[in-house]
Amino acid sequence: MSSELGTVLRIGVFGESHGRAIGVTMQGLPAGEAVDMAALEAFLERRRPGRNALSTARVEPDRPVFLSGMLEGKTTGSPLCAIIENADARSRDYTEFADKPRPGHADYTAYLKWGGAADMRGGGHFSGRLTAPLCIAGGIAKQILARRGVAIGAHLAAVAGVADEPFPLLPTGALFDEIAQKDFPVLDEAKGKRMQTAILTASREGDSVGGVIECAAIGLPAGLGGPMFDGVENRLAHALFGIPAVKGVEFGAGFTAAAMRGSEHNDPFRIGADGSVTTETNHAGGILGGITTGQPLVLRIALKPTPSIAKAQRTVSLSKHENAELVVKGRHDPCVAHRAVPVAEAVTALVLLDLILEEKREWI
Amino acid sequence: MSSELGTVLRIGVFGESHGRAIGVTMQGLPAGEAVDMAALEAFLERRRPGRNALSTARVEPDRPVFLSGMLEGKTTGSPLCAIIENADARSRDYTEFADKPRPGHADYTAYLKWGGAADMRGGGHFSGRLTAPLCIAGGIAKQILARRGVAIGAHLAAVAGVADEPFPLLPTGALFDEIAQKDFPVLDEAKGKRMQTAILTASREGDSVGGVIECAAIGLPAGLGGPMFDGVENRLAHALFGIPAVKGVEFGAGFTAAAMRGSEHNDPFRIGADGSVTTETNHAGGILGGITTGQPLVLRIALKPTPSIAKAQRTVSLSKHENAELVVKGRHDPCVAHRAVPVAEAVTALVLLDLILEEKREWI
Amino acid sequence: MSSELGTVLRIGVFGESHGRAIGVTMQGLPAGEAVDMAALEAFLERRRPGRNALSTARVEPDRPVFLSGMLEGKTTGSPLCAIIENADARSRDYTEFADKPRPGHADYTAYLKWGGAADMRGGGHFSGRLTAPLCIAGGIAKQILARRGVAIGAHLAAVAGVADEPFPLLPTGALFDEIAQKDFPVLDEAKGKRMQTAILTASREGDSVGGVIECAAIGLPAGLGGPMFDGVENRLAHALFGIPAVKGVEFGAGFTAAAMRGSEHNDPFRIGADGSVTTETNHAGGILGGITTGQPLVLRIALKPTPSIAKAQRTVSLSKHENAELVVKGRHDPCVAHRAVPVAEAVTALVLLDLILEEKREWI
Amino acid sequence: MSSELGTVLRIGVFGESHGRAIGVTMQGLPAGEAVDMAALEAFLERRRPGRNALSTARVEPDRPVFLSGMLEGKTTGSPLCAIIENADARSRDYTEFADKPRPGHADYTAYLKWGGAADMRGGGHFSGRLTAPLCIAGGIAKQILARRGVAIGAHLAAVAGVADEPFPLLPTGALFDEIAQKDFPVLDEAKGKRMQTAILTASREGDSVGGVIECAAIGLPAGLGGPMFDGVENRLAHALFGIPAVKGVEFGAGFTAAAMRGSEHNDPFRIGADGSVTTETNHAGGILGGITTGQPLVLRIALKPTPSIAKAQRTVSLSKHENAELVVKGRHDPCVAHRAVPVAEAVTALVLLDLILEEKREWI
Repeated sequence: MSSELGTVLRIGVFGESHGRAIGVTMQGLPAGEAVDMAALEAFLERRRPGRNALSTARVEPDRPVFLSGMLEGKTTGSPLCAIIENADARSRDYTEFADKPRPGHADYTAYLKWGGAADMRGGGHFSGRLTAPLCIAGGIAKQILARRGVAIGAHLAAVAGVADEPFPLLPTGALFDEIAQKDFPVLDEAKGKRMQTAILTASREGDSVGGVIECAAIGLPAGLGGPMFDGVENRLAHALFGIPAVKGVEFGAGFTAAAMRGSEHNDPFRIGADGSVTTETNHAGGILGGITTGQPLVLRIALKPTPSIAKAQRTVSLSKHENAELVVKGRHDPCVAHRAVPVAEAVTALVLLDLILEEKREWI
Repeated sequence: MSSELGTVLRIGVFGESHGRAIGVTMQGLPAGEAVDMAALEAFLERRRPGRNALSTARVEPDRPVFLSGMLEGKTTGSPLCAIIENADARSRDYTEFADKPRPGHADYTAYLKWGGAADMRGGGHFSGRLTAPLCIAGGIAKQILARRGVAIGAHLAAVAGVADEPFPLLPTGALFDEIAQKDFPVLDEAKGKRMQTAILTASREGDSVGGVIECAAIGLPAGLGGPMFDGVENRLAHALFGIPAVKGVEFGAGFTAAAMRGSEHNDPFRIGADGSVTTETNHAGGILGGITTGQPLVLRIALKPTPSIAKAQRTVSLSKHENAELVVKGRHDPCVAHRAVPVAEAVTALVLLDLILEEKREWI
Repeated sequence: MSSELGTVLRIGVFGESHGRAIGVTMQGLPAGEAVDMAALEAFLERRRPGRNALSTARVEPDRPVFLSGMLEGKTTGSPLCAIIENADARSRDYTEFADKPRPGHADYTAYLKWGGAADMRGGGHFSGRLTAPLCIAGGIAKQILARRGVAIGAHLAAVAGVADEPFPLLPTGALFDEIAQKDFPVLDEAKGKRMQTAILTASREGDSVGGVIECAAIGLPAGLGGPMFDGVENRLAHALFGIPAVKGVEFGAGFTAAAMRGSEHNDPFRIGADGSVTTETNHAGGILGGITTGQPLVLRIALKPTPSIAKAQRTVSLSKHENAELVVKGRHDPCVAHRAVPVAEAVTALVLLDLILEEKREWI
Repeated sequence: MSSELGTVLRIGVFGESHGRAIGVTMQGLPAGEAVDMAALEAFLERRRPGRNALSTARVEPDRPVFLSGMLEGKTTGSPLCAIIENADARSRDYTEFADKPRPGHADYTAYLKWGGAADMRGGGHFSGRLTAPLCIAGGIAKQILARRGVAIGAHLAAVAGVADEPFPLLPTGALFDEIAQKDFPVLDEAKGKRMQTAILTASREGDSVGGVIECAAIGLPAGLGGPMFDGVENRLAHALFGIPAVKGVEFGAGFTAAAMRGSEHNDPFRIGADGSVTTETNHAGGILGGITTGQPLVLRIALKPTPSIAKAQRTVSLSKHENAELVVKGRHDPCVAHRAVPVAEAVTALVLLDLILEEKREWI
C-alpha cells in the first residue's frame, strides 16, 4: 500500500504526525518552473490549524524546507523533496488509543494492518497533518497551472447541513482569489456565519460536524482524459479519496443527476458569443465520457464529521477483548471541512497537471 | 489514455460498439481457478439488453469466446482473453452525430480527442456495450472470491427519485442471490414497480431517467487497503467511475455523513456475539482510514439519465459551426441503471480481488 | 505477473502456442495513424517460421485480424486488438514434457508457478510464437516512428561465435531497408554464409546454436529519457528481456566498455559539419545518463541456443521423482536468432514510441 | 521521468550531489521489521568514498537520518524516508561543465533535457553519490530477506580487463560475508592485487578504468517471476541500469551463451542429494522463462570507466558553439566498480523483495 499519486507527475507523501518530519516528493516536475515562496506559504496558511476557535489549538508554522529539486527558486527537473519538521507534538495524549480504538478513526484498522508496529501517535500517517505536504506539492502545481491559464478554486458548499451558494455557471479566477482570502471560505457570508455557529455549537457540546467542498477548475484544455478507467473523473476521484475523512466524490450534478430526466440533465451545445462551442448548462461538470469539454470542471467532496470528539464513546479494549468506554482528551478540530478547502484545490491541481503532462505536454 | 485497471490483477477492455468484436484481457489471474460457464452466462444475462420494454431492443447473445488463458474450464495462469463478436449493429443510425454531437454524450469529446479518426458508431468505445466484457472479467473474479467466502451483491437504490430500501446492516449472500434472480433488482417490490412505471413513462415521453446503485461486499478480510492514495475507497472509486454514466461514488453514509454529528456518525466498536470486534452501526461502509474493518463494505454510485433521448435537442453543427437541432432516432435505453447493477458488482469484484492478490496472497 | 509493457503506450500480449488464438492489445496509440497493411505483413514475414531449412517447418500464415481500434486503415484512438488464429498445432508432440521438463526450457518453471493448470502445449505462453503479436504491435509503432523520421534496424551480430561487421558509426535508413530485405539479415554476406553453415551443422547434429543481435535507432529526439530507473536503457532492457531466449542486453560498447580506459571510452564532443553537436565516436550508444544524445542509439542482445534439441538429454520425472532421459521429437528451430531480428526492432520501436508519447508528445 | 522503482515495494530516490540532502523513500515495506543500524551502517561503509587511494578523497560520513516510517528500530508500515545531509561539497569545481560538457558524462544530456535549470553541481542527480540512499533502501531490504533465508552477495568479476574467479556453482552466505568484509571485494586476492595496480596506474596517468560485477542470490523461492515483460530478468535489468555507469546486464552465461551449443548450455535436471530437483550446471543463472528455478540467481553488470578524468579532452563550448578543450580538475574516482559492488547487491535486494511481496506474500 502506498501514499503515491500520479502517472507522469508522481507525488509521494511520507511522515507520521508525531515523527521527526513529514514531507513530500515530486518526480516528473517540469524544469525551470519558478516557485513563488510567499504565494506558497500563503496557500499553506489556508489549511494551517490554530488560527481560530474553529480548529485545533496545535500551533505549527508549517514552513517547508526544500531538500532537493529546487535551485534559486526554480525547479531543477530532478526529484523535488520538501519537508516540514514536527515540533509541537504531545505524544502522551495518544497512548490510550492503541488499546481502545477511537470509533470512526483509523486506530483499529491500522492495528489490523500493521499490528503494534504502527506509529499512531497523533494519528500517525493517517493524520490530517499529512495534508500539509500535499498542499506543498499542490501549491506548486497550482502555480505551474496558473501560468498556463488554469485556475482552481474551492469553497465550503455545506457544513452541518447548512448549504452555501453553488459556484456560478462560469466561475472566474477573481472569484477564486476572493474566496482564498477569506478566513472562512464561502460565497455567501450569511451562510458562512450560520456554518461557523454550527461548528462552535458542536464544539461546545464536545461533538463535531462534517461538510461538503465544491471545487472548480477553469481554463483547462478540452479533450483531456479518456473513456473507462483513465478518465478525468477516475483519476480525480482516486486522488480525492486520499484526503482524510472524504466519503463521497461527485462531478457536475453528481448524485442529483440520478433523479433528473435526460432532457433536463443533458447540457445543450451552443455556439458561444466568442464563437467557441459551449453549453447552456453544466450538469456534466465539464466532463463527458471521461474527457474535458472545455467548460468549467466542477466537483464536490463529502467529508465526514471529525471522529475525535470529547463525548464519551463506546469502544472495545483490544487487550482485554471486552467492551469499554472511551473519553478522548486533548484538543481536536470540531470540523475539518474548512481547512480541507485548499487541500481539495491541491489534490485537484496535482491530478490535472499530471494529465496535462501526460497528454498535452506541448501545452507546458 | 487507457481502458486498463488494476495493479496485480490487470484488466484491459477493448472494442467499439459496432466494430468486429469487443473483449477483455486479464493478466495476473491465479492459475487453476475453475470458471463455471453456466454461472458466468447467467451473470452476463443480468446486464443483457433487449429483455423487456425497459431497455433497448437490440438483441445480442453476448456469449463469450475464450481465446487464451483457459484450458478445460480452468484458468491457466497466463493472460486470458475473451471476446464477444458483434452482430446486430445498425451503423446507419449513428452517422449524424459526428457532425451534430448529442448533448450529454461523448460524441463531442471523442471528436476533441481523436478528431475524425474515432469510430463512434453506436457510441464506439464509450458505449455501454463495453460493460459486457467488463462483466466477463468481473464474473470470473466473483467466482474466485465466492470460493473464499467473499460475496458481492447490488440493487437499485433509486430510479428517477424513487428510493428502494437500503441494504440491512448485515446483508447475506442469500439476499444477494435473491436479488440477482429478479428481473428488476430491488429489495422492495412495491418500490420497484414505481421505478418501472417511472422508466416507462419517461420512455413514452421520449425521455430518460437516472438512478443510484447500492453495492455491498461481505466476507472480506479485514486490514485490506491503506491510507492516502491506495486505499480501498481510492481504488474502487477509480474503477467505478469507469462505468459509463456514473457521476458520483460514495461509501457508507457518504454525502449524508457531511450533515451528521461525529457522535452520530462514529460507529461504536463492540465485542460481537461470536467474540469478534464488530460495530453497532456501519456509517463507515466497512472502511476506516482506507482500510477494511471486517464489516460489510457498502458503496453507492449515481448514474445520470441516458443522454440518448427521442426528444428534439439543441446542439451545434461542427462542420457549419452554427447552432442546430437534433432528433435522435433509433432505440435507446430509457434507463441504464438496472442493467448497470451487475456491472457495479463486476467492477467491485475486480478491484477487491486485485487488492487481495496484492496484499493477502496467502488467502488465495 | 503480466505480459504488459509501457507507460503511456501500453502493450498487452496474450495467447498460448496451441490455444485458439494469440494476440496483442495496444492502449494509448495516437488516433488517425495510417497502418500500411502490406508493409506490416512484410515485417511479420521476416520472423515467420517455415521459410527455409534454418527454421522450424511449422507453416503459419500469421495474418493479423484487427478486432478493434482500426477503421478504414487508420487507428481510431481507442484500444486496438489484433489476433492471429492458431492453425497448424500438433499438440500430441508436447505431452511428455509435463512430466519430464526439457532442460533449458520453461517447462519446469511453468510447473512451479502454475502447477498442472498451465497450458504448455507448444511452449504455451512462453513460446517464441508469442513474438508474432509483438511484431504486429511493433510493426505499427515502427510505421508511426518512421513518419517522424525515426528509423530502426537490426542485424545478426553473431551466430555460433561467428561475428558479422558491426553497424557503421552513422547507420542510415537505407542500410536498415537493405538488411530487412535479406533472407539472412547480416551486413557481411560472407560472414552470413558461415553462420548459416554453423546453423545447418548444428541442426544435422541434433543440436542448436545461439546468437547476438545488434539493433540501432536513428533520428531520435535528443533529451529523451532520464536518470536512474526510468531512462532509455532501463526501459529498453526491461522490454528486451521479454524476447524469449534473451540472456544479455548491452548499450554502446557494453561489456567491452568495462575493459576500456576513460580516455578511450569517452566520446569527444564536436561541432559537426551541419553545425549540430555530435560525437567523434559512439561508445555510449547514443545514451548518456539514461538520456538520448541525438547520436544513433545502439544496443545488442544475446540469445541463448534453442533449448529444444534432438539429442538425448538428462532430466527428471516429476511424477516418479527420479532421474530420467528425454529425447525431444518434433521439429524445432536449430537457431532463433535470425528470426528474432525483427522482434528486436519491434520491441525497440514500442519502447521508443512510448517514451516519445510520454515526453515529447508535441513531436507526434 | 522518475527515479522510482518497484511495484508493491516502491522506492523513490531524490537529491542532488551538492544540494541540501539526498534521500530515499520506501513505500510498501512490511511493518514490524527490525533494522539493525550497525549492520546498515557497515553496509553503507562498503560504498563510501574516501577510504583509500582507489577512490575520491571526498569524505562523507553518510549517516542516514530517518524522518519517518521507523519507530524504536522497527518499520512502522507507513512510508519510510531516510536522508543524508550533504556536507563536503565544493561547488566551485563544477561551474565550467555547464558550458563545456564533459565527454561521457550526463552534463550534455541534462542540459538537453532541463536546460539551464538543472542543478548539475557535483553531477547533480546523476552523481554516483545518489547510490548512497539506494544502499540505505537496499540494505534494509537485504536484512528483511536475510531473515527469510535469502542471501545476496557480489564481487568484482573484472577490472580493466583483469578477471576474478567466478562464483562457484553453489555460493554460500559465508562466502558472501567473507567478500563483504574485504577492502577490495574479490574472490582471488592475487587477481585483486592486479586490479588495484591497474586502477592506480590509470589514476597516475590521469585516466580511469571500468569493471564488471558479478552478483548472486541464494535461498530464493522457486517460481518467482513470469514470462515476457514482468519476469525476474526484466525487473532486475530495469533496476540495474539505474546504477550510474552500467552499460550491460546479463544473467547466467549471458553473452557467452550466444556462442554455445544447446547441448552444452542446457542445464540437465537431476534429483539432488537432498531429494530436491536441481541442475548439474547453472548456465541459466537460476532463471528459466523469466521464473526462478530454485538454483542460485547469477547476474553480471558492466560498468564503463569513470568519465571524469584528468587528461585533456575534446569537447564543445555550448555558449560559443565551437570546439573546445577541457581539463577536469578536482578529485575523481579512477574506478567506481569496486564501490558499486554493494550497490549491485542493494538494487538486487530491492527487486527481489518487491517480487516476493507481490507474489509470495505469505512468505514474508
